[in-house]
Amino acid sequence: MTNPTAAMLVIGDEILSGRTRDANMYHLAGQLTEQGINLKEVRVVSDDPAAIIAAIRTLSEGYAHVFTSGGIGPTHDDITADCIAEAFCAPISIRDDARAILQAHYDTQQQPLNDARLRMARIPDGATLIDNPVSKAPGFTLRNVHVMAGVPSIFQAMLASVLPSLTGGHPLISQTYRVERGEGDIAAPLGALAHAFPALSIGCYPFQKDGLFGANIVIRGTDTGLLDEAMVRLQKEFPA
Amino acid sequence: MTNPTAAMLVIGDEILSGRTRDANMYHLAGQLTEQGINLKEVRVVSDDPAAIIAAIRTLSEGYAHVFTSGGIGPTHDDITADCIAEAFCAPISIRDDARAILQAHYDTQQQPLNDARLRMARIPDGATLIDNPVSKAPGFTLRNVHVMAGVPSIFQAMLASVLPSLTGGHPLISQTYRVERGEGDIAAPLGALAHAFPALSIGCYPFQKDGLFGANIVIRGTDTGLLDEAMVRLQKEFPA
Repeated sequence: MTNPTAAMLVIGDEILSGRTRDANMYHLAGQLTEQGINLKEVRVVSDDPAAIIAAIRTLSEGYAHVFTSGGIGPTHDDITADCIAEAFCAPISIRDDARAILQAHYDTQQQPLNDARLRMARIPDGATLIDNPVSKAPGFTLRNVHVMAGVPSIFQAMLASVLPSLTGGHPLISQTYRVERGEGDIAAPLGALAHAFPALSIGCYPFQKDGLFGANIVIRGTDTGLLDEAMVRLQKEFPA
Repeated sequence: MTNPTAAMLVIGDEILSGRTRDANMYHLAGQLTEQGINLKEVRVVSDDPAAIIAAIRTLSEGYAHVFTSGGIGPTHDDITADCIAEAFCAPISIRDDARAILQAHYDTQQQPLNDARLRMARIPDGATLIDNPVSKAPGFTLRNVHVMAGVPSIFQAMLASVLPSLTGGHPLISQTYRVERGEGDIAAPLGALAHAFPALSIGCYPFQKDGLFGANIVIRGTDTGLLDEAMVRLQKEFPA
């Protein structure tokens, strides 16, 4: 069985201008790997409808799942929901189920559910709501696209709501082995190892610390037996 | 004058598997913004030749500059240079100028310049080398694509070598104003402000801290006078 694939679309000028350091990509990558879903591509685009719509169409066609972050709040630059609707030619309007969630929340907060806040109840037809235990305004899933907030605590909470509903594959397991040799000395034997185990992904991540050259060699795969076998071979090649 | 555009391509399985948290995107975004170059898109792809080549072609056509990070070391998974060559149908081989740099470096280190290390001297025809003061193995620029290492300290050093040679635009200036009101109360006046100043980018970044709701409103643009004018209007709308 091949593991399902996924892509992520990060939406927001604040990431591209360097004002904000994205935290959601790293979180999503770790979570998907645990669940056996292969994150194959990430794109970051600005708050530009044409760019968002084009990316959504391409990624939705190319991968089993697409996760978006950002642009679903109440302000004028929150255009993600409308772009998703347009990407799939789906009608979009204020939906009763989403409005009810917001109404209950703002009643509790003793704040008015004004026009701006009501924008957060704009959900494309046919979408399923994603629960937001942090600040209530829901995300949604339309087709294979999961639309979530950009604020990391909310993104993480929404992802936790979505992930259990997705069919994962064999979890990707990784083992790391530290070799205190220059990367140029490691390269040839490592290439041979990668050639001998085509089902595994073998990466070499060099470090240089206190004048010491070395590399962390990471072997990734879904077959524990194969992984162990490669690791034994690696340790024989570079004894500790 | 419109500012030049740019895109970034991050190459590496380790980012997509969640093993490594990318640091280069945030650094590049900040540096480009200072120089008046608009970073419009970032893509992250795995160590897969087809994915790298397709992304390079698309981004190189779409933007004035492309910056890549990752995949230029000596190991089997370092395939960026060959992919760039293929993307532009340029021949690639071990180049004398790059070999001389490596030879001098490894002589000093009393380490052999073996086949693996020599791979780092594979540079496409027509490319200009990018200086690497950290670990010597050079990056390169081919057409409008600047190819740099993934290790953050080396990426940053290479970027510092490249940036002064690029023609920037008006630096993008930003001003931030903190409003201690819920985002839903801010949205309508902010939308009107954005409408009144179409040349400025106005973003709203909510926070929630110790039970306090608020948002940082960030106004970005290249015209200081216009920025000040918008900021005065904003402060009048939401007095401190």
